[in-house]
Amino acid sequence: MRAVDLIARKRDHGELTEQELGFLVSGYLGGGVSDGQMAALLMAGVLNGFTEDEALALTRILLDSGESLDLSGLRGPTLDKHSTGGVGDGTTLLVAPLVAAAGGQLVKLSGRGLGHTGGTLDKLESIPGFRTSLSPDELLAVVAEVGCAVAAQSERLVPADRALYALRDVTGTVASPALIASSVMSKKLAAGAGTIVLDVKAGDGAFLTSVEEAEALARLCVRIATAAGRRSVALVTAMDEPLGRGIGNALEVAEAVMLLRSPPHADGRSRLTDVALDLAAHGLALAQGGSDGKVAQVRASLEDHWGSGRALERLRAMVAAQGGDPAVCDDPVRVLPAAPVVREVPAPAAGVVTAVPARAVGDIAAALGAGRAHKSDDVDPAVGLELKVEVGDRVARGASLATVHARSQEAADAAARGLADLVELDGPGGDAAPASPLLAVVAS
Amino acid sequence: MRAVDLIARKRDHGELTEQELGFLVSGYLGGGVSDGQMAALLMAGVLNGFTEDEALALTRILLDSGESLDLSGLRGPTLDKHSTGGVGDGTTLLVAPLVAAAGGQLVKLSGRGLGHTGGTLDKLESIPGFRTSLSPDELLAVVAEVGCAVAAQSERLVPADRALYALRDVTGTVASPALIASSVMSKKLAAGAGTIVLDVKAGDGAFLTSVEEAEALARLCVRIATAAGRRSVALVTAMDEPLGRGIGNALEVAEAVMLLRSPPHADGRSRLTDVALDLAAHGLALAQGGSDGKVAQVRASLEDHWGSGRALERLRAMVAAQGGDPAVCDDPVRVLPAAPVVREVPAPAAGVVTAVPARAVGDIAAALGAGRAHKSDDVDPAVGLELKVEVGDRVARGASLATVHARSQEAADAAARGLADLVELDGPGGDAAPASPLLAVVAS
Repeated sequence: MRAVDLIARKRDHGELTEQELGFLVSGYLGGGVSDGQMAALLMAGVLNGFTEDEALALTRILLDSGESLDLSGLRGPTLDKHSTGGVGDGTTLLVAPLVAAAGGQLVKLSGRGLGHTGGTLDKLESIPGFRTSLSPDELLAVVAEVGCAVAAQSERLVPADRALYALRDVTGTVASPALIASSVMSKKLAAGAGTIVLDVKAGDGAFLTSVEEAEALARLCVRIATAAGRRSVALVTAMDEPLGRGIGNALEVAEAVMLLRSPPHADGRSRLTDVALDLAAHGLALAQGGSDGKVAQVRASLEDHWGSGRALERLRAMVAAQGGDPAVCDDPVRVLPAAPVVREVPAPAAGVVTAVPARAVGDIAAALGAGRAHKSDDVDPAVGLELKVEVGDRVARGASLATVHARSQEAADAAARGLADLVELDGPGGDAAPASPLLAVVAS
Repeated sequence: MRAVDLIARKRDHGELTEQELGFLVSGYLGGGVSDGQMAALLMAGVLNGFTEDEALALTRILLDSGESLDLSGLRGPTLDKHSTGGVGDGTTLLVAPLVAAAGGQLVKLSGRGLGHTGGTLDKLESIPGFRTSLSPDELLAVVAEVGCAVAAQSERLVPADRALYALRDVTGTVASPALIASSVMSKKLAAGAGTIVLDVKAGDGAFLTSVEEAEALARLCVRIATAAGRRSVALVTAMDEPLGRGIGNALEVAEAVMLLRSPPHADGRSRLTDVALDLAAHGLALAQGGSDGKVAQVRASLEDHWGSGRALERLRAMVAAQGGDPAVCDDPVRVLPAAPVVREVPAPAAGVVTAVPARAVGDIAAALGAGRAHKSDDVDPAVGLELKVEVGDRVARGASLATVHARSQEAADAAARGLADLVELDGPGGDAAPASPLLAVVAS
């Protein structure tokens, strides 16, 4: 078997077997297949497509490259949740305590933010003392005690995925449904949960802009999970405008805490709340072997756990168990780091908000220091944006569109200028009616 | 400028500027652009295509990466000749002395054989004492004295092409017209000749199997030459069966010598002879600024030089000037190395030869040791095949299809079995009428 012949087959629209893909991936890790050869294969796959069988095979190969977590010692159904990445997407901060409050066991290995998208680890680390580096034993102990835990993925899980992703990142070969699905699902399978709930974002601020592409990716991920003997459901959700109003690490934690401190929909805002409830409800219903009708029933019980404060109590317990200051659940503004410069962004004119483009807003937050241009960058936990409006809101001239939290006056002014240009008021392109972010449900 | 953004543009069917391509190539040579990035770019270009402007730009970038030969000190028109590679393609051994005999100056930097195709350097080095490593001054001195010289390309010419080709070779990214054209033409431009005559092979034994693809490559090469201020003409010639009857290094030299020792077409065979005369005639006519009518006139004069022995005399002078034994032109069988085992391949049945598949025949010769599987392999100068038949010939059962020259009895028997299977007699697929190998002429 020669790498160049396998690359040529993929280049010529052929298919590779699991054995051949395994030869290439293990050769890549071992040095017998060069960076150039793997990159050429990946680009051929990005442009010609990988088949579903190839995606399934690749997932198994990545999974088998490292260790897996053994969750069999936990009592009750185990769940995992993954988002393909968005802006102002603090759903994990809500889903984890909601699942725990309802008796599920949410075991989430998470990543860091990159580009305009945020990462749950960065958000949680804005809580003083919070530790995301947990050993497998520590992680399982937190889940057993609290019902949920969010930790950094160990380097011993799916090392082949890390190696491949580093190459894909610099060679323009990220954009392949099969490569994305096998990367995501190998990590989810290695993390061991029996039920995997996926949030596949579609829109301007998502990796995939079209709903059709997002649905196809969702289907592929669910099929991979099913083939591996796991239960899985994927929600396709809109990511044209930021999901929550906080965009920035501490700001998103504060928003999640403040939402959990009131009954769901108490402030009339619903997008982040609804996506979190939908994800938790679909995941729990599936974990409990439920039928379609069960989802609504589970969702109603989750609203109860939210309204009663039990979900907030689970978040507090998780923060405490992972070394963070639990007072963040009482007074997040006091406990979380604050940026030295805070300024409002006045609306340049009166009108109805027709668009808050998620990607550009995410880029502004990243430029303030909330995100990373490169993997090795540090993030500033305190900076970011608090949006005051969403699509469909009517604003007066001079009313605040957002609050900017910045490290310097210059950075704040630049962000404010950028944001005032971005938010569209009565613009030609927009439908001002707020739409439900839930676009599709893909089940096995 | 970031490499990953440029790769992504090519992946998404965009075009790169000369400055951007230059950034990538110089970064690749300098280390700022990785093997993986360059391979991903090349694969994207192979699958999505490079534009003509990109091919022109890439040629200039490769050319500018090294030195060029200065032929301005030579008197008379300077010519270069290039073949895209075939089986039994000893045309250079005829074209060089023909051009010299007619007063042209043929300066050819050549390569070595790879896979089923042969290389002129390997063939000439089968002549005892023949040196292909000449300094620029030595090369120019031989041309000034003889009218032709064939030498190995210096490492100081187009180093970027060598680096890129080494990567393309192992990453399945050879097959791009723009990459092939820029690689070929950057070398031809660096070698300095005013007129460049190209032999673009089409067919089973060629890199490009279809005539249309070969014509497109020929057009691109001629355009690149024209844009660089050179004269250029490309002949598209058939490579479905081996061009000459000798396939193997010493065997091809012996065939060329024996052909030049008689008037052209003396033995009734014409394919190798005609291609050599056509290439030399088109090249010389163009070098002399001639019109279409001039080609036939030049070709007639070349036949005179051939028949009078002046071409053979130029070959003898070149061999002597490059350190080889000139007696090869008197008695090649005595001077050239001989293989220890020689056997005939009897026809298994009577019939008309309908196919002698060039690639498979080339592979058999390579397996005997005449060619290389890998660039670093040595070749055996003595081994190979002498075909006794070509398409259209009628053979009796048991008559010899070919003579095998081998290092061992086992190798000879294996080659004989392979060849007897390959040569088609009255087969269903073939048109038995011998066709002219000249398929098209592409001029600027």
